[in-house]
Amino acid sequence: MAAVSQENTVDIRPATAEDWPGIWSILEPVIREGETFTWDRDTTEDEARAKWVKGAPGQTFVAVRPGAGDQILGTGEFHANQGGGGSHVANAGYMVGANYSGQGVARALCAYSLRAAKEAGFHSMQFNAVVESNVRAVWLWQSMGFRILATVPEAFNHPEIGYVGLHVMYQKL
Amino acid sequence: MAAVSQENTVDIRPATAEDWPGIWSILEPVIREGETFTWDRDTTEDEARAKWVKGAPGQTFVAVRPGAGDQILGTGEFHANQGGGGSHVANAGYMVGANYSGQGVARALCAYSLRAAKEAGFHSMQFNAVVESNVRAVWLWQSMGFRILATVPEAFNHPEIGYVGLHVMYQKL
Repeated sequence: MAAVSQENTVDIRPATAEDWPGIWSILEPVIREGETFTWDRDTTEDEARAKWVKGAPGQTFVAVRPGAGDQILGTGEFHANQGGGGSHVANAGYMVGANYSGQGVARALCAYSLRAAKEAGFHSMQFNAVVESNVRAVWLWQSMGFRILATVPEAFNHPEIGYVGLHVMYQKL
Repeated sequence: MAAVSQENTVDIRPATAEDWPGIWSILEPVIREGETFTWDRDTTEDEARAKWVKGAPGQTFVAVRPGAGDQILGTGEFHANQGGGGSHVANAGYMVGANYSGQGVARALCAYSLRAAKEAGFHSMQFNAVVESNVRAVWLWQSMGFRILATVPEAFNHPEIGYVGLHVMYQKL
C-alpha cells in the first residue's frame, strides 16, 4: 500500500526549540481553520506554544523527511490527560501540514506517540475530542488500535457543517 | 425527604475574592485526599486558585447557609470544556466540606450550575472524569439528569482501592 511505503520515508524525532517556527507553520493554518481542533481560532503564537510544547513525562515531536533537512511535515505531542490519580493516562494531538497529507505523516506521528508514551510509563491513551466529521482521522486512529468509547452529541460547532459530535477514543498501551 | 428539605437551607451565590480562604478550606482536604478529583495531590494554593476561579462565561460560586454569615459549605465552578468549536459545552466541578456532606449541598451546587451555565449560553454540560468509585456523586449526577456516556477503564488510580474507571457524563441544558 502506498501509505505504508510512504510512511517509511517519514522520520519522527523529539522537537527542539529551533523547531518552533516550523511547528507554528503547521499549527497556525489548522488552528485558524477551526475544523479539527477544539482550540480558539484566534489563539496567538505564544498561547499555541504554551499549549503544544510539553515537558516530561510528555513530549513534543516533529515529522521530517529523512535526509531532506529540517523541513517539518507535521508535529505531535502527548501529555498526561489528567492530574493526580488520572496521570497514568496519556492524551495526544497531531497536526500535519496541508502539503503533506496522505503521505503517512499522521500515522507515523501517532505510532511514535504510542511507543514513546508507553516508554514514558503511561498505561493507556485517550483522545477527548476527535471531531466526528474528521472521518479520515477517525478511521486512521481506529486502524491504529483506538476505539470510540463515546460520542458527545453536537459537542463541536464546525465552521462549515455546523454541530457534529466529538468522539472520546481510547486504547491500552 | 430529608435531603430535599435540607437543600432548601442552602444558598448558592457567585464567589467573590473575599471568599477564597473559605473556598480553599473546602478544596484543600479534597485535593490532598486524592480520591475524587484528578488533581495532583500536592497542588499548591496558588495553583488551585488559578484552576478553580473562572471568569465569564464561566463562573465560580459558593454554598452558604442563609442568615448564617459567610461560612462556606461547598463550592463549584463551570467553564467551557473545550475552546473553539467546542466552547458551547460546559464542564463543571463541585466540592463540599466534609462537615456538610449529606445535606443537599452538592445537589444545590449542581442545580445552580446547570441553570447558570444555560443562562450563560452553554448548550450542554459534560463531566470528563467522574471517579467510578465515588458512587454517591455518580448517583446524584444521574438523578439530576446526567447520563454516563462512557467509562474510561482503569483511568483513575484511587489511593485506597487502586484502579477504577472514570465516567464521562453529559446532559443537554
